[in-house]
Amino acid sequence: MVLDPPLASPMVGRLTIIGVGLIGSSILRAAKVRGLAGTLVAYDASEAVRDRALALDLADLVASTPEQAVRDADIVILCVPVGAMSSIGAEIAPHLKPDVIVSDVGSVKGAVLTALRQHLPAHARIIPGHPVAGTEYSGPDAGFATLFKNRWCILTPPEGADAVAVGQLSALWTAMGANVETMTPEHHDLVLAITSHVPHLIAYNIVGTAADLEEVTNSEVIKFSAGGFRDFTRIAASDPTMWRDVFLNNREAVIEVLGRFTEDLIALQRAIRWEQGDTLFDLFTRTRAIRRSIIEQGQETAAPDFGRERE
Amino acid sequence: MVLDPPLASPMVGRLTIIGVGLIGSSILRAAKVRGLAGTLVAYDASEAVRDRALALDLADLVASTPEQAVRDADIVILCVPVGAMSSIGAEIAPHLKPDVIVSDVGSVKGAVLTALRQHLPAHARIIPGHPVAGTEYSGPDAGFATLFKNRWCILTPPEGADAVAVGQLSALWTAMGANVETMTPEHHDLVLAITSHVPHLIAYNIVGTAADLEEVTNSEVIKFSAGGFRDFTRIAASDPTMWRDVFLNNREAVIEVLGRFTEDLIALQRAIRWEQGDTLFDLFTRTRAIRRSIIEQGQETAAPDFGRERE
Repeated sequence: MVLDPPLASPMVGRLTIIGVGLIGSSILRAAKVRGLAGTLVAYDASEAVRDRALALDLADLVASTPEQAVRDADIVILCVPVGAMSSIGAEIAPHLKPDVIVSDVGSVKGAVLTALRQHLPAHARIIPGHPVAGTEYSGPDAGFATLFKNRWCILTPPEGADAVAVGQLSALWTAMGANVETMTPEHHDLVLAITSHVPHLIAYNIVGTAADLEEVTNSEVIKFSAGGFRDFTRIAASDPTMWRDVFLNNREAVIEVLGRFTEDLIALQRAIRWEQGDTLFDLFTRTRAIRRSIIEQGQETAAPDFGRERE
Repeated sequence: MVLDPPLASPMVGRLTIIGVGLIGSSILRAAKVRGLAGTLVAYDASEAVRDRALALDLADLVASTPEQAVRDADIVILCVPVGAMSSIGAEIAPHLKPDVIVSDVGSVKGAVLTALRQHLPAHARIIPGHPVAGTEYSGPDAGFATLFKNRWCILTPPEGADAVAVGQLSALWTAMGANVETMTPEHHDLVLAITSHVPHLIAYNIVGTAADLEEVTNSEVIKFSAGGFRDFTRIAASDPTMWRDVFLNNREAVIEVLGRFTEDLIALQRAIRWEQGDTLFDLFTRTRAIRRSIIEQGQETAAPDFGRERE
């Protein structure tokens, strides 16, 4: 999988990435490979991460303060945990140039929009975004240029947002290989609750339940994890800070979808108790079709067991 | 990944596999590659599958009846859904030679032992087994010789079982690349409830919940599945008949573990509602350690996202 060759001329003058983790460092890499920005600027609150960004040569300039990072930037993308958006917003606010586009990559959009609006100046064009892509690894070394290729990036422009700014940001994501869709922050938060947040919560939860069972040792759980359990441990290895913030900032949608999930699970439990085999069989057949569609639409590989078992 | 070279002489005279699906056909392939049996016999209730087994050259003899399949067999391994064990047991019972070893590969062991004991003659040595390995694909074409390599196979010999028979069966699985562990059927059913059965049920359930949400379209669920959801769809694409039978035949352990899971999930939901970030963060940190152990013990690959995103 590769990205297209570099553009003849950059589409953004100065692009600033704040937060150089998995996503931030992948944007920097993709922007560099494709020559998307005249000047690429990176900043991270951690000095160790800034040093690593320098060593990895991820940007033209690794700024040592938020102020230096956003000065003269045309587009600023905040790639920090959702819970840190408010404070970084307050820090950069006085130093933004007129008509700057400020976006982010947070997994929750309603709360981020509220946080940014609270701090940023009226001239800043706030267009929240969320690339639906990632791995279970974190930090500047974990990123790679093709992370967004053939993945979806959702933009959630607030009502009355500047269409030109939406277009520019959309072009930037498209140039990194993503498909772009726009929706309201509220709808985004509900869609992601079912496609991402609740799956993560369930995965974290079952790994916790397994660890706590007195009758089964952790060593047994680990040995026999190939029976299905290990698939849950991958997403339950995701970044704890990021995910804590997701749940605290998308409480309503997560609790709503969790309610549905639990209701359905209790109905299944009842079907098992009363030996209603047809109810089980019907569900188990129906779920295969969704898998097929996900593979057909290129969001998943069809390799058996993701190719883990074969050579 | 490859198996060791063929043995100088076979360790079993006549080995019969009943049910030529993912697991049955993988045993046939592994036994052939390693030269484990003097004569390899296969049988499947479906004529189409028998024809396919012939075309794939999976056995020395593809029998056309259960009677022909088990005649003179030294070891018979039943690779049919758990719900079919009782009827196939009744069919083969009159045709088993004295001291035959009868085993199986079902994901539930208590119910299978009961079913086989009910039908098989007293001289048959019943040693139930369960290789903890598989993929989301089914049928004779889905199998491969290395499926059991570095996976665990659990044997659940009943009290007073013939130690020689346990040793022979254990050697057979070891020769196919598996590690063998023995435990009681009851303990097996509890361990697998947490490492396999409940994870499958949860995966089926969330895919169903997602499909039924009125506010989010199936097309959105599919598009944005890379956020975590797609990992659940792989195991929710597993064989419906097999899994219906698992739940109907391991009701007590599944309901017990499900009770724990739901209790834990409701506590997490409460932590979200009351914004107890530390509770979430602590769990999310603890689960990473289990992932690490699974990778260290070779039951999982450390490739990010199973290598799906990179080239």
